[in-house]
Amino acid sequence: MIESNPNLKEYSQSFYLSAGECNAQAEMPITLLMNRIIEVATNHANSWGVGYARLIEDNQGWVLSRVTIEMTRYPRVDEFYSLTTWIEDYNRHFSQRNMEIADNDGNVIGYVRTIWVVINLSTRESVDISKLSYIAANVTEHPCPIEPQSRLRPFEPTRTETYRFQYTDIDFNGHVNTVRYLEHIINQFPWNHHRENFISRMEISFVKETYYDEEAQILIDDNDPTNIRLDINVGDTTRVRSRLIFQKREK
Amino acid sequence: MIESNPNLKEYSQSFYLSAGECNAQAEMPITLLMNRIIEVATNHANSWGVGYARLIEDNQGWVLSRVTIEMTRYPRVDEFYSLTTWIEDYNRHFSQRNMEIADNDGNVIGYVRTIWVVINLSTRESVDISKLSYIAANVTEHPCPIEPQSRLRPFEPTRTETYRFQYTDIDFNGHVNTVRYLEHIINQFPWNHHRENFISRMEISFVKETYYDEEAQILIDDNDPTNIRLDINVGDTTRVRSRLIFQKREK
Repeated sequence: MIESNPNLKEYSQSFYLSAGECNAQAEMPITLLMNRIIEVATNHANSWGVGYARLIEDNQGWVLSRVTIEMTRYPRVDEFYSLTTWIEDYNRHFSQRNMEIADNDGNVIGYVRTIWVVINLSTRESVDISKLSYIAANVTEHPCPIEPQSRLRPFEPTRTETYRFQYTDIDFNGHVNTVRYLEHIINQFPWNHHRENFISRMEISFVKETYYDEEAQILIDDNDPTNIRLDINVGDTTRVRSRLIFQKREK
Repeated sequence: MIESNPNLKEYSQSFYLSAGECNAQAEMPITLLMNRIIEVATNHANSWGVGYARLIEDNQGWVLSRVTIEMTRYPRVDEFYSLTTWIEDYNRHFSQRNMEIADNDGNVIGYVRTIWVVINLSTRESVDISKLSYIAANVTEHPCPIEPQSRLRPFEPTRTETYRFQYTDIDFNGHVNTVRYLEHIINQFPWNHHRENFISRMEISFVKETYYDEEAQILIDDNDPTNIRLDINVGDTTRVRSRLIFQKREK
């Protein structure tokens, strides 16, 4: 059910969490949340005529550069939830799009900060987006009370895993899908850890694209099991940086 | 956008295929189609009051036993598509739910046959569902012109792969998610194979549940690369049987 917001500056969409979509805790996986974030951002941009269909005419596309998510809880099985999105800041280099996740009663259960850039699909270089002035005209004051992403510096891993990217990891640009990176990140923690904790804050930064059949090293610093740094490298290049803040579940 | 069909016997739901959801061919992955099949079936059952919320009261749940999909093409990026579902047959053992996938112009691009059973969530045994008589009253004559699932017999593999199930493979029942099986199945074929062929028919049968951290053997018979048998075993028990019919893409 798409509810195009009467206020064009904001766009809301509601979803139903089916049993088949749930994680082992019978709640919304953060990977599905990431999918919804991309879907709602895409729909809002499309509603403005500055989405995929418009940009592809110039051989350009939106690319998600950074995502920061904070959740007090995740939607549970059989629950309706909504995402509302708006633009907080915009310049010729990037668009800063925020979101609010609400439960069926309208209670806000989380916030999201995203940074988007537009790239030339041939050169993969980011392009000036000041031409998309419609966006600049739609910056709003809607508050987003979560901290911007912290600087994710290199670190000394406590352990390193390896993974070779497969067909279903690859998106329609021929690169590893943002959601799949996140999936491999959360799979670095056993079921017991997810059973006892939930991800209360997640920061992820997409540094460089990764390709089919590349073998990645997943570097993990879990000295503090509630505040984890995790990078995905291929050879000596960093592809993804992330931080996961885990919070104990209430019994 | 949910369009609850005026004819309660049928239920339709429309979706938008965002760029982020697409596979490397810029089309709907069969894994996402499987998610949509489960979502629409769940919503239809819920609309009748015989869905998850009702069954959980009796410590019961719907379980997908078999799925057969035939597609002439898959929805493409930025396209709207719809799933329409109805019950073809119903008895105390199982419910046979079919679906029709249509593009935004209403052209049917695929059909689905599914078999659902209800299990006791403690014993995992299937239960008599004749009490859900509302369903029996809603059997319709809507045609589904694809062959029922063939008998998937044991076979001699041409190759065998292994995979250990991880956290994101596990669903809210604590078992491997049906969609994840399918993902590991299609990952047994390289990108080139998917680039040149699409899955025109897929049969999958869920025989026995699989658990977190179990190591599976994936048995493949690809003597005929267009008609492939693939089973997922753990030890000497078969968990999933499948058949994939690949069709050359038009250049």
